[in-house]
Order: sequence, then C-alpha cells, then structure tokens
Amino acid sequence: MTGCLACDVLAGRIEAPGGVIHETAHWSVDHALTRWIGGWLIVKPKRHVEHLAELSTEEAAELGPLIQAVSAAMARVLSPERVYVLSLGEEVHHIHFHVIPRYRELPGHVLRLLEQAWGERSPWECTDEEAAATAAALREELRG
Amino acid sequence: MTGCLACDVLAGRIEAPGGVIHETAHWSVDHALTRWIGGWLIVKPKRHVEHLAELSTEEAAELGPLIQAVSAAMARVLSPERVYVLSLGEEVHHIHFHVIPRYRELPGHVLRLLEQAWGERSPWECTDEEAAATAAALREELRG
Repeated sequence: MTGCLACDVLAGRIEAPGGVIHETAHWSVDHALTRWIGGWLIVKPKRHVEHLAELSTEEAAELGPLIQAVSAAMARVLSPERVYVLSLGEEVHHIHFHVIPRYRELPGHVLRLLEQAWGERSPWECTDEEAAATAAALREELRG
Repeated sequence: MTGCLACDVLAGRIEAPGGVIHETAHWSVDHALTRWIGGWLIVKPKRHVEHLAELSTEEAAELGPLIQAVSAAMARVLSPERVYVLSLGEEVHHIHFHVIPRYRELPGHVLRLLEQAWGERSPWECTDEEAAATAAALREELRG
C-alpha cells in the first residue's frame, strides 16, 4: 500500500467493484468503494496529483470531455434525475471527482446540508464589497 | 427575467458581486450570489444547458482547462487548504460548477454530511455484485 487509496486502486492493489470502467490517456473511471448509491463513480487522474491547480495541460484537456461522456453514459444506463459531480479531496487527497446518479427521491439536498454547516454564522461570510474585492483580485490573477 | 437565475446573471439582469471575473468562448466565471464564503465562484456555460451530458464538444473541451485555471488563481489569491468543485443543479438547473475555497477550519466535511443523509439506510445502497453489474453496463455504454 502506498498510503494513497486512489493509487492503490489504480495499481490494482484494491479492486473497485467490477474493475476499471473506462480510461483515457490520463484518467481512469471506476465504481466507488462506497456503496451508498449504486452507480456512484470515481473519475481520477492516473498520476498522483493533489490539487486541481496542478493538473497538466494534457490532463486538464481530457477532463471536460470525460465528465461529459461519463454523465451521458450514466444518464442512459441509470436514468437519474440529474448527475452530481463533486471534487472534495477530504480524505483521499489524490484528485478525484465523484460522479453520482442523483435520483429524484434522494434525500439530503447537498446545498441545504452545506447551508446548515456553513450558513449564516460562517466566519467566512462576506459582504458585497468584500466579495467584489475578491472578484477583482481573481480577475486580475486570471488575466495573467 | 427568464426564470433561469444563471441566464439572468449572464445577461446582466442580476449582477454578481464585482461583475464577470473571467470568460472563455463558452463559459463565464463570477462570484456566487451566496455570501457564505468569500471567493466562492460559479463557473457556468454561456448557453442554457441543463445536463452535463448535453455539453457540446466545444463546451466540454474548455471545461477542464478552465477549472484548472480558476483553481490555480484561487490557490494563489486566497490560499485555501484546497479547492472544492461541485456541480449539483438542485435549484438552478442551468449547469454550473461551484468552485469553493475550502479553508482548513471550515466545519462540515461534505462527505460526512452526505453520509449522514445517504448512509447505511439508503434504498440505493448496493451490494458488490450490484455495483459490479452497474460497472459492466457503464463500461459497455462508454465503449460505444
């Protein structure tokens, strides 16, 4: 074991249910080890990279078309109401996107859960002026 | 108003704090209208499209490099512990990615919140065999 669950799955030391589902030159797709919801997929780069900012040009180029294709396959095979895509990196720091079939009856609206956790009393809550200042700093950075 | 908040922001009928931060041919980036966390950005296609499966080839091609660039700018300007990326579509069905500076002290680990909502007693919970069968069906669909 390497200490990275994603690397262990990629190397075959841990097997996801059903094995590798799809791969591109730089990314791999398999079923989540979590069994909360059948069809919950994990999309991750083959290289151990921990921050989205550090994706290579080639890795970044493949991401959008892959998310699109995986979402389309999920829509056709599982017919969820929609498809959730989440990259959090809380426990496994190797970048991965959870691609989750969101069925109509699924409880626990994610944004409402976040609102409960992060809502009104968040120390990071900002005023319009603070948000605009942050927007300006990010605009400048993205212009570079 | 069009009935789509994202389209209203794109058309300038509603202004995000600080205005448009960045745009590509097919996508636009601005600050969230939610003020729970300063620097929370929304990345959305300029076209009204409701499912990731329906992104055009051109839209999909720009997504990965844009997520990479926005994450990198956020890392440099705001120095979060990491960057969350979430596409949910619960209330605004026009596709959008929440790109959120996840600070070290932020409470409410998203996966733990989901576990509470979707955990052990989920009717969608699956066995290894069911997960493997779903994996096989998705593999076949992605091969096409």
